[in-house]
Amino acid sequence: MTCPIARSLERVGEWWSIMILRDAFHGLTRFDQFQASLGIAPNMLSRRLDGLVEAGLMERRRYQERPSRDEYVLTERGRDFLPVMVALMDWGNRHFTPEGVSSQLVEAATGRVIAPAVVDPVTGLPVDAAEFKFAAGPAADDNVLRRMAFVDRKREETHG
Amino acid sequence: MTCPIARSLERVGEWWSIMILRDAFHGLTRFDQFQASLGIAPNMLSRRLDGLVEAGLMERRRYQERPSRDEYVLTERGRDFLPVMVALMDWGNRHFTPEGVSSQLVEAATGRVIAPAVVDPVTGLPVDAAEFKFAAGPAADDNVLRRMAFVDRKREETHG
Repeated sequence: MTCPIARSLERVGEWWSIMILRDAFHGLTRFDQFQASLGIAPNMLSRRLDGLVEAGLMERRRYQERPSRDEYVLTERGRDFLPVMVALMDWGNRHFTPEGVSSQLVEAATGRVIAPAVVDPVTGLPVDAAEFKFAAGPAADDNVLRRMAFVDRKREETHG
Repeated sequence: MTCPIARSLERVGEWWSIMILRDAFHGLTRFDQFQASLGIAPNMLSRRLDGLVEAGLMERRRYQERPSRDEYVLTERGRDFLPVMVALMDWGNRHFTPEGVSSQLVEAATGRVIAPAVVDPVTGLPVDAAEFKFAAGPAADDNVLRRMAFVDRKREETHG
């Protein structure tokens, strides 16, 4: 599949992987730290960390010999996932916290709570504005082209 | 768990659910449309659509009687997931499309490709700027508080 969402999900589309990334953004690096934070079975954690290393989101670094111990740190690709995580966190806070917010992004100096927005940096408009639409890119396959033709028909029905 | 990311993932943290949402943003509403687009087994699709309805992201609407047929449309909560999807798509396009982009967000009138940014709307700064940090909210439980104390220690080590 060439769809960028499908490809992203192949790498991180799994509950535990995203929870590990969340903890990595919080500064956790060691196996026992992830395990204590997540309460996840060691073999499952091991498999997920290996998957994140393989997908190029984390890298393994030896921090101790005898006994040998590795830590797991975010790569540039992994750190680049932070905005997606923040958008997801904000959506969760708006829809699934009837008892109030437990965790959020703030301005470090002032404590001001951030209400993140996903925008087009050129116009400043939010990406869900009617001005934008999904479109095929240069490497679209037949499946994407069919879907985008459908999107355009729907859009004409809706916007005239 | 009170973490907003964990709560979000309980609702959409699953490959197929996000692919269904992607198609819904493209305008698909009917069972056979989702099935043709995704090539998913009917019982699996049925279960995922039920899950999205139960989580309040889609609603079921009868569009035909004899034989009865329902369509599935995004609720407000579901539509509000679009910015997360766009951020995820953009990350996928930047990291996993060696052969070029197949699908992207564009300005409808001009075809200009959007490079979405997740920002603090007050300052315009991207959310991964050093000015921001994760912090506990009013409803944080012990687990979140412990994690945030760790974040603060790490932050002091890094930023002095």
